[in-house]
Amino acid sequence: MSVQTYPIRLSTNGQTEVRDITAAVQEVIDRSQLAAGTATVFCPSSTSGLTTIEYEPGCVADLRRMFAELLPSTREYAHNAAWDDGNGHSHLRAALLGPSLTVPFTGGRMTLGTWQQIIYVDFDIRPRQRELIVQVMGE
Amino acid sequence: MSVQTYPIRLSTNGQTEVRDITAAVQEVIDRSQLAAGTATVFCPSSTSGLTTIEYEPGCVADLRRMFAELLPSTREYAHNAAWDDGNGHSHLRAALLGPSLTVPFTGGRMTLGTWQQIIYVDFDIRPRQRELIVQVMGE
Amino acid sequence: MSVQTYPIRLSTNGQTEVRDITAAVQEVIDRSQLAAGTATVFCPSSTSGLTTIEYEPGCVADLRRMFAELLPSTREYAHNAAWDDGNGHSHLRAALLGPSLTVPFTGGRMTLGTWQQIIYVDFDIRPRQRELIVQVMGE
Repeated sequence: MSVQTYPIRLSTNGQTEVRDITAAVQEVIDRSQLAAGTATVFCPSSTSGLTTIEYEPGCVADLRRMFAELLPSTREYAHNAAWDDGNGHSHLRAALLGPSLTVPFTGGRMTLGTWQQIIYVDFDIRPRQRELIVQVMGE
Repeated sequence: MSVQTYPIRLSTNGQTEVRDITAAVQEVIDRSQLAAGTATVFCPSSTSGLTTIEYEPGCVADLRRMFAELLPSTREYAHNAAWDDGNGHSHLRAALLGPSLTVPFTGGRMTLGTWQQIIYVDFDIRPRQRELIVQVMGE
Repeated sequence: MSVQTYPIRLSTNGQTEVRDITAAVQEVIDRSQLAAGTATVFCPSSTSGLTTIEYEPGCVADLRRMFAELLPSTREYAHNAAWDDGNGHSHLRAALLGPSLTVPFTGGRMTLGTWQQIIYVDFDIRPRQRELIVQVMGE
Protein backbone atom coordinates (compact mmCIF):
# COMPACT_ATOMS: atom_id res chain seq x y z
CA MET A 1 0.00 0.00 0.00
CA SER A 2 1.20 3.48 -0.77
CA VAL A 3 -0.05 7.08 -0.80
CA GLN A 4 1.00 9.50 -3.52
CA THR A 5 -0.08 13.10 -3.99
CA TYR A 6 0.22 15.19 -7.14
CA PRO A 7 -1.11 18.58 -8.27
CA ILE A 8 -3.16 19.32 -11.39
CA ARG A 9 -2.60 22.89 -12.61
CA LEU A 10 -5.30 24.73 -14.53
CA SER A 11 -5.76 28.25 -15.88
CA THR A 12 -9.47 28.96 -15.80
CA ASN A 13 -11.75 31.82 -16.80
CA GLY A 14 -14.10 31.35 -13.85
CA GLN A 15 -17.79 32.25 -14.43
CA THR A 16 -18.87 28.61 -13.92
CA GLU A 17 -16.42 27.33 -16.50
CA VAL A 18 -16.60 23.53 -16.76
CA ARG A 19 -13.38 21.61 -17.45
CA ASP A 20 -12.93 17.92 -18.17
CA ILE A 21 -10.05 16.73 -15.96
CA THR A 22 -10.48 12.98 -16.53
CA ALA A 23 -7.25 12.54 -18.51
CA ALA A 24 -5.25 14.54 -15.95
CA VAL A 25 -6.51 12.33 -13.08
CA GLN A 26 -5.78 9.15 -15.06
CA GLU A 27 -2.28 10.45 -15.71
CA VAL A 28 -1.68 10.67 -11.96
CA ILE A 29 -2.81 7.05 -11.54
CA ASP A 30 -0.51 6.00 -14.41
CA ARG A 31 2.43 7.82 -12.82
CA SER A 32 1.75 6.21 -9.43
CA GLN A 33 2.06 2.70 -10.97
CA LEU A 34 -0.63 1.51 -8.55
CA ALA A 35 -3.05 -1.12 -9.83
CA ALA A 36 -6.02 -0.79 -7.45
CA GLY A 37 -7.19 1.86 -5.02
CA THR A 38 -8.89 5.22 -4.82
CA ALA A 39 -8.11 8.56 -6.44
CA THR A 40 -9.29 11.45 -4.27
CA VAL A 41 -9.55 14.70 -6.22
CA PHE A 42 -9.77 17.80 -4.05
CA CYS A 43 -10.25 21.56 -4.72
CA PRO A 44 -8.30 23.67 -2.20
CA SER A 45 -10.76 26.48 -2.88
CA SER A 46 -14.12 27.72 -1.63
CA THR A 47 -15.31 28.94 -5.05
CA SER A 48 -15.01 25.78 -7.15
CA GLY A 49 -16.18 22.17 -7.07
CA LEU A 50 -16.13 18.72 -8.62
CA THR A 51 -18.54 16.13 -9.96
CA THR A 52 -18.99 13.84 -12.97
CA ILE A 53 -21.15 14.39 -16.05
CA GLU A 54 -21.40 13.37 -19.70
CA TYR A 55 -19.00 16.00 -20.98
CA GLU A 56 -20.71 17.19 -24.14
CA PRO A 57 -21.73 20.79 -24.97
CA GLY A 58 -25.43 20.23 -24.22
CA CYS A 59 -24.94 18.87 -20.69
CA VAL A 60 -22.32 21.51 -19.96
CA ALA A 61 -24.69 24.32 -21.05
CA ASP A 62 -27.52 22.77 -19.01
CA LEU A 63 -25.31 22.52 -15.92
CA ARG A 64 -24.26 26.16 -16.19
CA ARG A 65 -27.90 27.22 -16.56
CA MET A 66 -28.84 25.09 -13.53
CA PHE A 67 -26.42 26.99 -11.29
CA ALA A 68 -27.44 30.35 -12.80
CA GLU A 69 -31.07 29.62 -11.96
CA LEU A 70 -30.70 27.98 -8.54
CA LEU A 71 -28.14 30.51 -7.29
CA PRO A 72 -28.21 33.62 -9.49
CA SER A 73 -25.24 35.97 -9.51
CA THR A 74 -27.56 38.98 -9.77
CA ARG A 75 -29.27 38.97 -6.39
CA GLU A 76 -27.96 40.22 -3.07
CA TYR A 77 -25.68 38.13 -0.87
CA ALA A 78 -24.54 38.88 2.67
CA HIS A 79 -21.01 37.86 1.63
CA ASN A 80 -20.97 40.59 -1.03
CA ALA A 81 -22.40 43.19 1.35
CA ALA A 82 -19.60 42.47 3.84
CA TRP A 83 -16.63 41.99 1.49
CA ASP A 84 -17.71 43.74 -1.70
CA ASP A 85 -16.07 41.07 -3.86
CA GLY A 86 -19.16 40.09 -5.84
CA ASN A 87 -18.69 36.30 -5.66
CA GLY A 88 -21.27 35.39 -3.00
CA HIS A 89 -23.04 33.10 -5.47
CA SER A 90 -19.71 31.39 -6.29
CA HIS A 91 -19.29 30.37 -2.65
CA LEU A 92 -22.79 28.87 -2.46
CA ARG A 93 -22.51 26.98 -5.72
CA ALA A 94 -19.17 25.53 -4.58
CA ALA A 95 -20.50 24.53 -1.14
CA LEU A 96 -23.51 22.83 -2.74
CA LEU A 97 -21.49 20.89 -5.35
CA GLY A 98 -18.71 19.93 -2.92
CA PRO A 99 -14.89 20.12 -3.09
CA SER A 100 -14.05 16.43 -3.09
CA LEU A 101 -14.55 13.40 -5.37
CA THR A 102 -13.35 9.85 -4.73
CA VAL A 103 -13.06 7.49 -7.70
CA PRO A 104 -11.97 3.83 -7.41
CA PHE A 105 -9.53 2.33 -9.91
CA THR A 106 -8.73 -1.30 -10.74
CA GLY A 107 -6.23 -2.65 -13.25
CA GLY A 108 -4.78 0.85 -13.30
CA ARG A 109 -7.99 2.37 -14.76
CA MET A 110 -10.74 4.39 -13.09
CA THR A 111 -14.11 2.65 -12.86
CA LEU A 112 -15.90 5.42 -14.79
CA GLY A 113 -18.83 4.79 -17.09
CA THR A 114 -18.41 5.13 -20.85
CA TRP A 115 -20.13 8.52 -20.99
CA GLN A 116 -18.91 9.79 -17.63
CA GLN A 117 -16.16 12.38 -17.19
CA ILE A 118 -14.72 14.07 -14.11
CA ILE A 119 -15.33 17.81 -14.24
CA TYR A 120 -13.94 20.76 -12.35
CA VAL A 121 -16.26 23.77 -12.18
CA ASP A 122 -14.74 27.16 -11.41
CA PHE A 123 -17.48 29.40 -10.02
CA ASP A 124 -15.28 32.41 -9.27
CA ILE A 125 -15.94 35.60 -11.21
CA ARG A 126 -12.47 36.18 -12.65
CA PRO A 127 -9.68 34.13 -14.27
CA ARG A 128 -7.75 32.03 -11.75
CA GLN A 129 -4.64 29.89 -11.63
CA ARG A 130 -5.85 26.75 -9.86
CA GLU A 131 -3.96 23.85 -8.35
CA LEU A 132 -6.10 20.79 -7.61
CA ILE A 133 -4.88 17.88 -5.52
CA VAL A 134 -5.04 14.27 -6.64
CA GLN A 135 -4.16 11.75 -3.99
CA VAL A 136 -3.97 8.08 -4.94
CA MET A 137 -3.92 5.37 -2.33
CA GLY A 138 -3.70 1.68 -3.09
CA GLU A 139 -1.47 -1.18 -4.03
CA MET B 1 -3.86 -3.12 4.51
CA SER B 2 -5.69 -4.41 1.48
CA VAL B 3 -7.93 -3.15 -1.34
CA GLN B 4 -10.84 -5.20 -2.58
CA THR B 5 -13.35 -4.30 -5.29
CA TYR B 6 -16.75 -5.89 -5.89
CA PRO B 7 -19.78 -5.07 -8.04
CA ILE B 8 -23.37 -4.60 -6.89
CA ARG B 9 -25.84 -5.49 -9.65
CA LEU B 10 -29.27 -3.87 -9.79
CA SER B 11 -32.20 -3.92 -12.21
CA THR B 12 -33.87 -0.54 -11.95
CA ASN B 13 -36.90 1.17 -13.47
CA GLY B 14 -35.20 4.58 -13.70
CA GLN B 15 -37.47 7.64 -13.34
CA THR B 16 -35.73 8.69 -10.09
CA GLU B 17 -36.25 5.30 -8.50
CA VAL B 18 -34.69 5.19 -5.03
CA ARG B 19 -33.10 1.93 -3.87
CA ASP B 20 -31.74 1.04 -0.44
CA ILE B 21 -28.33 -0.59 -1.04
CA THR B 22 -27.13 -0.61 2.58
CA ALA B 23 -27.28 -4.40 2.99
CA ALA B 24 -25.46 -4.96 -0.31
CA VAL B 25 -22.62 -2.65 0.75
CA GLN B 26 -22.38 -4.29 4.17
CA GLU B 27 -22.19 -7.68 2.45
CA VAL B 28 -19.11 -6.53 0.54
CA ILE B 29 -17.46 -5.48 3.82
CA ASP B 30 -18.36 -8.85 5.35
CA ARG B 31 -16.88 -10.69 2.38
CA SER B 32 -13.67 -8.64 2.56
CA GLN B 33 -13.09 -9.74 6.17
CA LEU B 34 -11.60 -6.32 6.88
CA ALA B 35 -12.25 -4.83 10.32
CA ALA B 36 -11.65 -1.11 9.78
CA GLY B 37 -11.43 1.14 6.75
CA THR B 38 -13.53 2.88 4.13
CA ALA B 39 -16.12 1.59 1.70
CA THR B 40 -16.24 3.73 -1.45
CA VAL B 41 -19.44 3.24 -3.41
CA PHE B 42 -19.29 4.53 -6.99
CA CYS B 43 -21.82 4.80 -9.87
CA PRO B 44 -20.11 4.27 -13.25
CA SER B 45 -22.93 6.27 -14.82
CA SER B 46 -23.79 9.89 -15.58
CA THR B 47 -27.53 9.48 -14.94
CA SER B 48 -27.56 8.14 -11.37
CA GLY B 49 -26.20 9.09 -7.96
CA LEU B 50 -25.75 8.20 -4.31
CA THR B 51 -26.47 9.66 -0.89
CA THR B 52 -27.92 8.61 2.47
CA ILE B 53 -31.43 9.18 3.80
CA GLU B 54 -33.90 7.75 6.27
CA TYR B 55 -35.30 5.14 3.92
CA GLU B 56 -39.03 5.29 4.60
CA PRO B 57 -41.80 5.98 2.04
CA GLY B 58 -42.32 9.61 3.15
CA CYS B 59 -38.68 10.70 2.76
CA VAL B 60 -38.40 8.77 -0.51
CA ALA B 61 -41.49 10.53 -1.94
CA ASP B 62 -40.19 13.91 -0.73
CA LEU B 63 -36.79 13.31 -2.34
CA ARG B 64 -38.37 12.39 -5.68
CA ARG B 65 -40.54 15.53 -5.55
CA MET B 66 -37.47 17.64 -4.70
CA PHE B 67 -35.70 16.54 -7.89
CA ALA B 68 -38.89 16.92 -9.97
CA GLU B 69 -39.23 20.50 -8.77
CA LEU B 70 -35.59 21.64 -8.83
CA LEU B 71 -34.86 20.01 -12.20
CA PRO B 72 -38.13 19.21 -14.00
CA SER B 73 -38.17 16.65 -16.80
CA THR B 74 -40.68 18.73 -18.74
CA ARG B 75 -38.63 21.78 -19.71
CA GLU B 76 -36.11 22.12 -22.52
CA TYR B 77 -32.52 20.96 -22.16
CA ALA B 78 -29.65 21.56 -24.58
CA HIS B 79 -28.66 17.90 -24.12
CA ASN B 80 -32.07 16.80 -25.42
CA ALA B 81 -31.97 19.25 -28.32
CA ALA B 82 -28.61 17.81 -29.42
CA TRP B 83 -29.11 14.09 -28.77
CA ASP B 84 -32.87 13.70 -28.71
CA ASP B 85 -32.70 11.17 -25.86
CA GLY B 86 -34.95 13.00 -23.40
CA ASN B 87 -32.81 12.53 -20.31
CA GLY B 88 -31.24 15.98 -19.97
CA HIS B 89 -32.77 16.36 -16.51
CA SER B 90 -31.34 12.95 -15.49
CA HIS B 91 -27.80 14.15 -16.20
CA LEU B 92 -28.24 17.32 -14.11
CA ARG B 93 -29.82 15.52 -11.16
CA ALA B 94 -26.96 13.00 -11.20
CA ALA B 95 -24.26 15.68 -11.42
CA LEU B 96 -25.83 17.58 -8.52
CA LEU B 97 -26.20 14.54 -6.25
CA GLY B 98 -22.78 13.10 -7.12
CA PRO B 99 -21.57 9.62 -8.13
CA SER B 100 -19.48 8.72 -5.10
CA LEU B 101 -20.03 8.01 -1.40
CA THR B 102 -17.36 7.09 1.14
CA VAL B 103 -18.47 5.40 4.38
CA PRO B 104 -16.07 4.42 7.18
CA PHE B 105 -16.41 1.07 8.94
CA THR B 106 -15.03 -0.16 12.26
CA GLY B 107 -15.42 -3.58 13.87
CA GLY B 108 -16.61 -4.75 10.45
CA ARG B 109 -19.70 -2.47 10.53
CA MET B 110 -20.38 0.82 8.75
CA THR B 111 -20.62 3.85 11.02
CA LEU B 112 -24.14 4.70 9.84
CA GLY B 113 -26.77 6.26 12.07
CA THR B 114 -29.75 4.23 13.24
CA TRP B 115 -32.14 5.84 10.75
CA GLN B 116 -29.64 6.29 7.94
CA GLN B 117 -29.51 4.15 4.81
CA ILE B 118 -27.34 4.31 1.69
CA ILE B 119 -29.46 4.94 -1.38
CA TYR B 120 -28.86 4.65 -5.10
CA VAL B 121 -31.05 6.93 -7.22
CA ASP B 122 -31.50 6.07 -10.88
CA PHE B 123 -32.51 9.23 -12.75
CA ASP B 124 -32.52 7.70 -16.23
CA ILE B 125 -35.85 7.56 -18.07
CA ARG B 126 -35.96 3.84 -18.83
CA PRO B 127 -35.22 0.56 -17.06
CA ARG B 128 -31.50 -0.14 -16.75
CA GLN B 129 -29.21 -2.95 -15.69
CA ARG B 130 -26.75 -1.21 -13.36
CA GLU B 131 -23.45 -2.34 -11.91
CA LEU B 132 -22.19 -0.23 -9.02
CA ILE B 133 -18.67 -0.51 -7.65
CA VAL B 134 -17.88 -1.02 -3.98
CA GLN B 135 -14.23 -0.72 -3.09
CA VAL B 136 -13.15 -1.46 0.46
CA MET B 137 -9.76 -0.44 1.74
CA GLY B 138 -8.49 -1.12 5.23
CA GLU B 139 -7.03 -3.67 7.58
CA MET C 1 -0.23 2.21 6.32
CA SER C 2 -2.70 2.45 9.14
CA VAL C 3 -6.37 3.24 9.79
CA GLN C 4 -7.47 5.20 12.84
CA THR C 5 -10.98 6.28 13.78
CA TYR C 6 -11.97 8.99 16.25
CA PRO C 7 -15.21 10.75 17.18
CA ILE C 8 -15.86 14.50 17.18
CA ARG C 9 -18.55 15.43 19.71
CA LEU C 10 -20.73 18.51 19.20
CA SER C 11 -23.71 20.04 20.97
CA THR C 12 -25.77 21.79 18.32
CA ASN C 13 -28.92 23.88 18.20
CA GLY C 14 -30.12 22.40 14.90
CA GLN C 15 -32.16 24.72 12.61
CA THR C 16 -29.43 24.64 9.94
CA GLU C 17 -26.74 25.68 12.37
CA VAL C 18 -23.35 25.85 10.64
CA ARG C 19 -20.26 24.81 12.61
CA ASP C 20 -16.60 25.08 11.62
CA ILE C 21 -15.02 21.70 12.47
CA THR C 22 -11.69 22.24 10.68
CA ALA C 23 -9.60 22.41 13.85
CA ALA C 24 -11.26 19.29 15.28
CA VAL C 25 -10.47 17.31 12.11
CA GLN C 26 -6.87 18.56 12.07
CA GLU C 27 -6.55 17.50 15.71
CA VAL C 28 -7.44 13.93 14.73
CA ILE C 29 -4.74 13.96 12.04
CA ASP C 30 -2.23 15.32 14.58
CA ARG C 31 -3.15 12.60 17.06
CA SER C 32 -2.80 9.88 14.40
CA GLN C 33 0.82 10.95 13.73
CA LEU C 34 0.29 10.06 10.07
CA ALA C 35 2.06 12.25 7.49
CA ALA C 36 0.06 11.61 4.31
CA GLY C 37 -3.34 10.15 3.54
CA THR C 38 -7.04 10.93 3.62
CA ALA C 39 -9.33 12.10 6.40
CA THR C 40 -12.88 10.89 5.85
CA VAL C 41 -15.41 12.86 7.90
CA PHE C 42 -18.81 11.18 8.21
CA CYS C 43 -22.17 12.16 9.80
CA PRO C 44 -23.95 9.11 11.24
CA SER C 45 -27.21 11.00 10.84
CA SER C 46 -29.88 11.58 8.21
CA THR C 47 -30.57 15.18 9.23
CA SER C 48 -27.12 16.76 8.93
CA GLY C 49 -24.37 17.11 6.34
CA LEU C 50 -20.87 18.30 5.49
CA THR C 51 -19.13 20.53 2.98
CA THR C 52 -16.50 23.27 2.85
CA ILE C 53 -17.04 27.03 2.67
CA GLU C 54 -15.32 30.30 3.51
CA TYR C 55 -16.46 30.38 7.13
CA GLU C 56 -17.38 34.04 7.62
CA PRO C 57 -20.78 35.39 8.77
CA GLY C 58 -21.85 36.49 5.27
CA CYS C 59 -21.32 33.11 3.57
CA VAL C 60 -22.89 31.32 6.55
CA ALA C 61 -26.01 33.52 6.36
CA ASP C 62 -26.20 33.03 2.58
CA LEU C 63 -25.90 29.25 2.93
CA ARG C 64 -28.71 29.13 5.50
CA ARG C 65 -30.92 31.25 3.24
CA MET C 66 -30.12 28.97 0.29
CA PHE C 67 -31.46 25.93 2.14
CA ALA C 68 -34.47 27.87 3.45
CA GLU C 69 -35.37 28.84 -0.11
CA LEU C 70 -34.61 25.61 -1.96
CA LEU C 71 -36.22 23.38 0.68
CA PRO C 72 -38.50 25.47 2.94
CA SER C 73 -39.49 24.16 6.34
CA THR C 74 -42.98 25.61 5.95
CA ARG C 75 -44.43 23.48 3.19
CA GLU C 76 -45.89 19.98 3.41
CA TYR C 77 -43.69 16.89 3.39
CA ALA C 78 -44.83 13.27 3.15
CA HIS C 79 -42.32 12.45 5.93
CA ASN C 80 -44.10 14.86 8.28
CA ALA C 81 -47.55 13.57 7.32
CA ALA C 82 -46.46 10.02 8.20
CA TRP C 83 -44.35 10.61 11.32
CA ASP C 84 -45.52 13.99 12.57
CA ASP C 85 -41.98 15.01 13.54
CA GLY C 86 -41.77 18.19 11.47
CA ASN C 87 -38.27 17.64 10.08
CA GLY C 88 -39.07 16.53 6.53
CA HIS C 89 -37.10 19.46 5.14
CA SER C 90 -34.12 18.49 7.35
CA HIS C 91 -33.94 15.06 5.72
CA LEU C 92 -33.96 16.51 2.19
CA ARG C 93 -31.36 19.16 2.93
CA ALA C 94 -29.09 16.49 4.45
CA ALA C 95 -29.55 14.08 1.52
CA LEU C 96 -28.75 16.87 -0.96
CA LEU C 97 -25.63 18.09 0.85
CA GLY C 98 -24.33 14.59 1.62
CA PRO C 99 -23.02 12.91 4.80
CA SER C 100 -19.40 12.35 3.82
CA LEU C 101 -16.33 14.45 3.03
CA THR C 102 -12.87 13.18 2.12
CA VAL C 103 -9.92 15.55 2.53
CA PRO C 104 -6.31 14.64 1.62
CA PHE C 105 -3.45 15.57 3.93
CA THR C 106 0.29 15.78 3.29
CA GLY C 107 3.07 16.71 5.71
CA GLY C 108 0.50 16.21 8.46
CA ARG C 109 -1.70 19.09 7.18
CA MET C 110 -4.95 19.03 5.22
CA THR C 111 -4.71 20.38 1.67
CA LEU C 112 -7.37 23.04 2.29
CA GLY C 113 -7.35 26.46 0.65
CA THR C 114 -6.55 29.54 2.70
CA TRP C 115 -10.19 30.63 2.90
CA GLN C 116 -11.71 27.15 3.05
CA GLN C 117 -13.11 25.56 6.19
CA ILE C 118 -14.84 22.23 6.80
CA ILE C 119 -18.37 22.78 8.05
CA TYR C 120 -20.95 20.58 9.69
CA VAL C 121 -24.56 21.68 9.12
CA ASP C 122 -27.21 20.41 11.51
CA PHE C 123 -30.59 20.60 9.76
CA ASP C 124 -32.63 19.01 12.55
CA ILE C 125 -35.26 21.15 14.25
CA ARG C 126 -34.11 20.76 17.85
CA PRO C 127 -30.84 20.75 19.82
CA ARG C 128 -28.86 17.54 19.38
CA GLN C 129 -25.82 15.83 20.83
CA ARG C 130 -23.90 14.75 17.73
CA GLU C 131 -20.97 12.42 17.30
CA LEU C 132 -19.22 12.67 13.95
CA ILE C 133 -16.68 10.13 12.74
CA VAL C 134 -13.23 11.04 11.47
CA GLN C 135 -11.29 8.19 9.95
CA VAL C 136 -7.72 8.78 8.85
CA MET C 137 -5.93 6.36 6.59
CA GLY C 138 -2.35 6.77 5.44
CA GLU C 139 1.27 6.41 6.33
